[in-house]
Amino acid sequence: MAEKRGNVIVGQSGGPTAVINSSLVGVYKTAKDRGAGKVYGMLHGVQGLLQEKYVDLSEHIRSDLDIELLKRTPSSFLGSCRYKLPEYTDKPEVYEKIFEILKKLEIEYFFYIGGNDSMDTIKKLYDYGQEIGSNIHFMGVPKTIDNDLAVTDHTPGYGSAAKYIGSITKEIIRDGLVYGTSQVNVMEVMGRNAGWLTGATALACCEDCEGPDMIFLPEVDFDMENFLTKVQKLLKEKTSLVIAVSEGIHMADGTYVCELTENVSQVDSFGHRTLTGAASYLANKVASTFGCKSRAIEISTLQRCAAHLSSRVDITEAFQVGGAAVKAAFEGANGMMITLKRVSDEPYICVTDIYDVHKIANVEKKVPREWINETGDFVMPPFIGYIKPLIQAELTAIMTDGLPRHLTLNLNQ
Amino acid sequence: MAEKRGNVIVGQSGGPTAVINSSLVGVYKTAKDRGAGKVYGMLHGVQGLLQEKYVDLSEHIRSDLDIELLKRTPSSFLGSCRYKLPEYTDKPEVYEKIFEILKKLEIEYFFYIGGNDSMDTIKKLYDYGQEIGSNIHFMGVPKTIDNDLAVTDHTPGYGSAAKYIGSITKEIIRDGLVYGTSQVNVMEVMGRNAGWLTGATALACCEDCEGPDMIFLPEVDFDMENFLTKVQKLLKEKTSLVIAVSEGIHMADGTYVCELTENVSQVDSFGHRTLTGAASYLANKVASTFGCKSRAIEISTLQRCAAHLSSRVDITEAFQVGGAAVKAAFEGANGMMITLKRVSDEPYICVTDIYDVHKIANVEKKVPREWINETGDFVMPPFIGYIKPLIQAELTAIMTDGLPRHLTLNLNQ
Repeated sequence: MAEKRGNVIVGQSGGPTAVINSSLVGVYKTAKDRGAGKVYGMLHGVQGLLQEKYVDLSEHIRSDLDIELLKRTPSSFLGSCRYKLPEYTDKPEVYEKIFEILKKLEIEYFFYIGGNDSMDTIKKLYDYGQEIGSNIHFMGVPKTIDNDLAVTDHTPGYGSAAKYIGSITKEIIRDGLVYGTSQVNVMEVMGRNAGWLTGATALACCEDCEGPDMIFLPEVDFDMENFLTKVQKLLKEKTSLVIAVSEGIHMADGTYVCELTENVSQVDSFGHRTLTGAASYLANKVASTFGCKSRAIEISTLQRCAAHLSSRVDITEAFQVGGAAVKAAFEGANGMMITLKRVSDEPYICVTDIYDVHKIANVEKKVPREWINETGDFVMPPFIGYIKPLIQAELTAIMTDGLPRHLTLNLNQ
Repeated sequence: MAEKRGNVIVGQSGGPTAVINSSLVGVYKTAKDRGAGKVYGMLHGVQGLLQEKYVDLSEHIRSDLDIELLKRTPSSFLGSCRYKLPEYTDKPEVYEKIFEILKKLEIEYFFYIGGNDSMDTIKKLYDYGQEIGSNIHFMGVPKTIDNDLAVTDHTPGYGSAAKYIGSITKEIIRDGLVYGTSQVNVMEVMGRNAGWLTGATALACCEDCEGPDMIFLPEVDFDMENFLTKVQKLLKEKTSLVIAVSEGIHMADGTYVCELTENVSQVDSFGHRTLTGAASYLANKVASTFGCKSRAIEISTLQRCAAHLSSRVDITEAFQVGGAAVKAAFEGANGMMITLKRVSDEPYICVTDIYDVHKIANVEKKVPREWINETGDFVMPPFIGYIKPLIQAELTAIMTDGLPRHLTLNLNQ
């Protein structure tokens, strides 16, 4: 019998992934197995918590089958938010409110599944908790398809997004070849400042596929002339080109390629501009310059919610980081984030570790320059070697009536 | 031992599907099993044949594993074309050339896997063959994700596209719910004149998903005012809307919604305009009218090549129509297309039949008006009941190194 523990609360924040709910059940199941009292889920993260929106997870995860379904359910089961916790000095009442609610619920352990911005929340709550002598443990559980969190080898969510992107790149390449006439497909992949996801299109370079022809990441300034020269050269050698670009590619002067169109860009609550249109701009540019057929393919929302094609390694690791966060917190850890530490590449061995959240929050990890070729239009073998283990194996989908089954929660409560 | 038969040639034409290669192996394997001599594959359909581009399929489909891989390989293995065979009176030399090549290869059976335009090719070649007293049998094998072929209950390719569309609609709906803030996602699905594919988004109405909020098909004139009024009403009731539109939706005066943008439209070799931008136009319209977040999601190429999530019923039927075409031709049929005939709904029982290609070519089957609701913004239960059996079950993917494996052919020979 596990030692009796206090109450737990867990939230999900930021953009969803295909496996974020595997981390949620990792937290839930481990907490329950290790003697937790109530395990609450905050609805829509800290933003919902501030409105006292939460559920008792035991009422919603009721069986082993529910756990298996949640591992296969994309997007945040508990809802998410893009809420930036204000500085304490600006709005002390926000902190007082959160701690008042946590006190009322007799919370001793607070887990937040998210990326950079979410780790900033954990950092601030931990700092405030220390200030007031709170006994609540604040722990970060890494999650983001963007793979841009510092210290951790990679982030849960990335492997499944990469597997999906690699798979559909193969399918798009196959599709492009059928007519034997000149055609340029430009795929637009998520990634504002880091090209981790776009680089995953290179996975399509394999025994039965030649892979994309060019890959442009935001880590290197985009050179329009070089781009057009290469397209012209390639069109002389082959009929169908597939080119992958990150949504955030920009010119040397900082102008985003997507800003070259007339599309109005929007700003989210973290002040990040919405960047779409780079592929569309480049596809039109190619068509008007070379008079050939071209098409922009925005991978869009699906790269972060395609649970129907997720990586078993990723789902497993997502569960593990959730469980490891609970274990560490129950053993006294506080103000930390769980990280993944790659012990070996061949065979791939990866363990969880733990790290000070202050050194992770708000830091963005980019693709190393040496993993991108000199001309900035493709990735190098070590990058592919890095991703490969993360996309291995599948978790058999649970299908009902022909479609993947999910476990869902009414978020309007 | 099967009776010895003459040589066979098979081609693939028009837009690819996720299961078009299952029909190819249906033709190949059945022909071989029933005593065919050589089985040739024309590269890029009739257009490639005219340039004497073909392969001996036995050199490329060498094992049972190859057959299984082909069933899972999207896009046309042999390449495709969008070549419109001219009228005999306009260009007799084209017909003479084709029959000269067929004679040289000692072809007795000619199979063409395709949709409306491809059946036009079969019709014309058959008519010319009769004219000159040829002994070659010309047979059509139905294929199109668009499901717009006449006479046949449905077309192979449609079930897998519908299953993919239903699945990702569920995922997109889940994704849209996370923030709890007003958001409108407009999905653009293929379908110029027929709404079969767009209607498949309604499959997402199931036990664990409420489905899309509105569905607009090209069969009914699009009413912008009704659209905006409904969006406004729905935004008062719920936060996240998912709306599906066919690329070909148009106003009462015939103007395509996508033409309301400044995007230049292109024309393909059949004179069909390229229609994209309806979702983008509507998403912008919603954002500017209601000031809420909106996003256009073009399903694009993936709806016709997502072999990673195909329907086993569809793959099986695709194989069957290929095999049935061979069986019928070997038994004397000529100038015919194989059709699918639904014998029963519950349980779903479907058999192959055969029909005069003259009555199928160039006819477009649309969604019956009574399968669309009165206000033209959703589909009726009989439509969903019609699709459901076609999306059932899966064929386990063959994965290598984390990605779906395909069988491919170098088309530059």
